[in-house]
Amino acid sequence: MRSDGVRQVHLVAMVQAPTSQYAEGWRHPASRTDWLDVGYYTDLARTLERGCFDMVFLPDSLAVPEDHAGDVGTTLRTGGKGAVVLDPLVVLSAMAAVTTHLGLGATVSTTFTPPYAIARSMLSLDHLSGGRAAWNVVTSTTDEQARNFGLDAIPAKADRYDSADRVVQTVLDLWDSWSPGALVLDAEGRRFADPALVHRTPDRGGPVRSRGPLSLPRSPQGRPVLMQAGASARGRRFAGRWAEVVFSIAGSAEAMRQERAALRRAAVEADRDPDDVLFLPAVQPVVGATHEDAAATLAELESHVDEQDALAKLGRLLHAPAEELDPAASGAELVQRHRGSTGSDGFEEHLVAVCRAGGMTVRDLALRQVIDQLKPRPLGDPEQVADELCELVDSAAADGFVVTFPVVPSSVDDFVDGVVPALQRRGRLRRDYSGRHLRSHLAG
Amino acid sequence: MRSDGVRQVHLVAMVQAPTSQYAEGWRHPASRTDWLDVGYYTDLARTLERGCFDMVFLPDSLAVPEDHAGDVGTTLRTGGKGAVVLDPLVVLSAMAAVTTHLGLGATVSTTFTPPYAIARSMLSLDHLSGGRAAWNVVTSTTDEQARNFGLDAIPAKADRYDSADRVVQTVLDLWDSWSPGALVLDAEGRRFADPALVHRTPDRGGPVRSRGPLSLPRSPQGRPVLMQAGASARGRRFAGRWAEVVFSIAGSAEAMRQERAALRRAAVEADRDPDDVLFLPAVQPVVGATHEDAAATLAELESHVDEQDALAKLGRLLHAPAEELDPAASGAELVQRHRGSTGSDGFEEHLVAVCRAGGMTVRDLALRQVIDQLKPRPLGDPEQVADELCELVDSAAADGFVVTFPVVPSSVDDFVDGVVPALQRRGRLRRDYSGRHLRSHLAG
Repeated sequence: MRSDGVRQVHLVAMVQAPTSQYAEGWRHPASRTDWLDVGYYTDLARTLERGCFDMVFLPDSLAVPEDHAGDVGTTLRTGGKGAVVLDPLVVLSAMAAVTTHLGLGATVSTTFTPPYAIARSMLSLDHLSGGRAAWNVVTSTTDEQARNFGLDAIPAKADRYDSADRVVQTVLDLWDSWSPGALVLDAEGRRFADPALVHRTPDRGGPVRSRGPLSLPRSPQGRPVLMQAGASARGRRFAGRWAEVVFSIAGSAEAMRQERAALRRAAVEADRDPDDVLFLPAVQPVVGATHEDAAATLAELESHVDEQDALAKLGRLLHAPAEELDPAASGAELVQRHRGSTGSDGFEEHLVAVCRAGGMTVRDLALRQVIDQLKPRPLGDPEQVADELCELVDSAAADGFVVTFPVVPSSVDDFVDGVVPALQRRGRLRRDYSGRHLRSHLAG
Repeated sequence: MRSDGVRQVHLVAMVQAPTSQYAEGWRHPASRTDWLDVGYYTDLARTLERGCFDMVFLPDSLAVPEDHAGDVGTTLRTGGKGAVVLDPLVVLSAMAAVTTHLGLGATVSTTFTPPYAIARSMLSLDHLSGGRAAWNVVTSTTDEQARNFGLDAIPAKADRYDSADRVVQTVLDLWDSWSPGALVLDAEGRRFADPALVHRTPDRGGPVRSRGPLSLPRSPQGRPVLMQAGASARGRRFAGRWAEVVFSIAGSAEAMRQERAALRRAAVEADRDPDDVLFLPAVQPVVGATHEDAAATLAELESHVDEQDALAKLGRLLHAPAEELDPAASGAELVQRHRGSTGSDGFEEHLVAVCRAGGMTVRDLALRQVIDQLKPRPLGDPEQVADELCELVDSAAADGFVVTFPVVPSSVDDFVDGVVPALQRRGRLRRDYSGRHLRSHLAG
């Protein structure tokens, strides 16, 4: 909150290419198709910085997702999410080279990446970007990911989160292994660093160990921002303990409010100030010059969706064979029968809640899932979308939003050239960055 | 070799900041000191591309090096090599964003990095850069690195190389998991990829496994170039089997010739064409407007070296306590007494050979080690340095060079503005890149 008491709307862009949150994005006629080239990402970063976003963030997946039969064919054929995924850190570092203020969030799994490697790569990005990095802490959830890392199956969820706690603690210990002032750079006195201010990590017992010190001093913002997305009870406890930014998928304002309140309680239970955790639910805005224009844009997005293709994608997501995908059956019941299939309890609860609230069939679920993953989609002219976002923040449903874009670059341009100025006119979004560091954007 | 039979001089820049191959680099008055900011690296990349280098390459270290007593104090206090090390991939990706042709070589250890992670990050860099990535394959060699990754000690050398063979094979299998043409992108036909052209990796048995497929298609140059630096017999067998570029440290033209011949024999023994492996020994040129000018530059570099400090650094490198460092004693004998201390047999053999050839004392060794690690240092005006480099190539001692720079940016500018045009006038270096991919630069 600003000093004048006006609550700011924090904006984080979620970028996933070529398989965006709108599953037909890769084949939409207005989409850029050079998503394996650096220019796709550097242009996008420049646009988001022009739009004064707090941060861009990249999700991750360490395997091509399989269907119920263990086959990757559906994902590959339909361009399902996870078919092609670039290393988030490699993408973000290129973005760092062409921007000066935009925050840069990388998803890195605690399940398969050694703490020293996480600590070093994230702090390297934080240094090179001048203090703009965030680590989106995840646990990996699927057997196909485990099999890419030499295991037969993914560890149980409780074990993954226990391990994640230890990994985060170890990464923080490594980031703290150089105290402030340790880097001296006294050329005449021949003192590069002060060894008394550089430490081994504390021995906390247990299997996750990295003795340190890290071969990097503290960054301009001290250390990268911690971000997290788990919406289960265990995930929320984890977020309450560690996270500064929480990304969530909630289907309604009421669901957001409940989640935000629960997150703030979890922070208090972890002896933290709840205002130090920003709750950012995902939205996929549809913006037009007028409301009718935006509605036409949504209809156009829907027109690219094929029902059979959508059902196949839903079957892949829920590990459901084709014969179970009766379009007229209850969407909520289908999800219930396949709980555990996506690897995310929180996401499955979200699907069930939205299906129930809307009385959605399997067909409805499949189509919405392909278009926006059942995320709220503020729709209208820029003023209407800005009003809806501000109202969610004012009603304690959100501290800001993870914004997804169905078509790149047109959806990004529509938002940055329309909604951003509308938010700025309301005094709800910075017109210029006031600080250089990501943590200072988040505190605004 | 070009079609007209003129042997080209391949140039690879080795970049290591702040602790360059000239150990006093961090405190030299002409050195840039913003080596934790992205601009240091993007400026350097632009200069090297202007100089038509084949590639820039970054070494790596996964721990702050310890002395004989297990203390990191000497390294930290003196700014020894490895005191501060940024993640090479993060640096190179930023360089990729501001260049279009320069090759980008990242060192990644096979000892601590899972093959799926190596395959994905390296192929991501290869895609984003438009086909310019190289992987410098190393095994980690020291206990302090092992302790940063949860182990008590580094595995034995033979085991590390056996593991490296399996890791390289697995990474290649993952890079090959998408056949050419697998990415279809048929928007109308709703076919993103052809599942029949995407494969699991073959099961080769053994502990190193990654089932695949990788979530990335082949890159513009197919896959990253493989680079290697081991000079021991086992390292040479490894290089003969896998490497396209071999980096070496040899103290004399004769040592280079022997190494190059041995490498080419190793390639033949691995059923490869020896011309497919480029042998690039390291050199640290000292360039001036005149020979006297260059000699003055070298004297100036030497003037920054303090004997006690140099002895302390040598003691750290060889894990020798201070009382063993008698300045007047034999350098070769000191190294012999501490064989195994640096983790690299090849490097230790090089030290012994150069000490013997020059009858060097411990003091001589310490001073040269601090200045250029006993690498050959072609010295003179641009024509003299160009002549010396061409003669090494013409006498079968080298296919080109890994060039190190004592002071950044002045040493780089001296080389690029002086030696590069001199090589170009001789027809020994491209005036413009003829291809876009690193592999095409290396074939030139």
